[in-house]
Amino acid sequence: MSVHDEPTLNKETIYEGKIIDVELHEVELPNGKTSTREVVKHPGAVAVIGITDDGKIPLVSQYRKATEEMLLEIPAGKREKGEEPKTTAERELQEETGYRSAHLREIAQFYTSPGFADELISVYLASGLQAGPAQTEADEFLSVEEWTLSEVRAALLEGSFRDAKTAFAIQSLLIREIE
Amino acid sequence: MSVHDEPTLNKETIYEGKIIDVELHEVELPNGKTSTREVVKHPGAVAVIGITDDGKIPLVSQYRKATEEMLLEIPAGKREKGEEPKTTAERELQEETGYRSAHLREIAQFYTSPGFADELISVYLASGLQAGPAQTEADEFLSVEEWTLSEVRAALLEGSFRDAKTAFAIQSLLIREIE
Repeated sequence: MSVHDEPTLNKETIYEGKIIDVELHEVELPNGKTSTREVVKHPGAVAVIGITDDGKIPLVSQYRKATEEMLLEIPAGKREKGEEPKTTAERELQEETGYRSAHLREIAQFYTSPGFADELISVYLASGLQAGPAQTEADEFLSVEEWTLSEVRAALLEGSFRDAKTAFAIQSLLIREIE
Repeated sequence: MSVHDEPTLNKETIYEGKIIDVELHEVELPNGKTSTREVVKHPGAVAVIGITDDGKIPLVSQYRKATEEMLLEIPAGKREKGEEPKTTAERELQEETGYRSAHLREIAQFYTSPGFADELISVYLASGLQAGPAQTEADEFLSVEEWTLSEVRAALLEGSFRDAKTAFAIQSLLIREIE
């Protein structure tokens, strides 16, 4: 594989927002020509697939304005400035579902859409779950559901999980169960 | 699950670009208050996990400006206006790898990052592959590698695939192989 990069010749910040910033880069290509690249900057996020002692998986149903539909997802949230991903994972799991986890470990890390965004998601597997009160943020309206492993497996195979991190995390859990 | 939505009260288009548009929506929340939602509009994309008759998986290595690194991904590309996803899949597979597929079917469809973007990816499984010349676009610089199933499995478990659609598609293939 030939390794190269695309040095930025000029950068324009189009938008600085609450969650995202948008930048326009004029870059130099490997053949010496120039092109423009649209880049969405995102602070990064975590997602948590939890499994309770009786084999249930907590899922969060919420309206997503970007896609204009209700989506069923694993608990997730964006990283606060300077926050360790594991701390974000603990916080988001507790805020959204009320659960605290005795065993939380990272099982994957990926870019959600590297063609235009730098968002990196760390996916955690949480077990040893202890129930407690949830406390969502002021502009979050979500409901928590608990599904069995066979229910999530069936829904996955039917293509019912329309959120990438959720489909990925459920597949990871199924691959681990099989092995 | 309580179903609700977030009607747009005001919308401002911040940016209209080559690949993405950026919108700022003032929305009404279920409690009657208002909030703002940043929305990246994207035409949608397809990704293709192919498997050759001798069990090899074509992967594409390319520099991604948004993440400032080389990434190894399955062939993929954005949908052209009005183009059927299956046509995009055929086109991108051929442009990037040279392969034509006799059997192309959709195995999943998901939003890459529904918290801020409407990008929907359709993932196709391609078999019956016939080699031919690749023809990449003017600003695309990529190299094609062919990996065995056991190589991609090992790399997946090590967390080497840092692109969401690629990690997801490889997991899908492994789950299908197991079943």
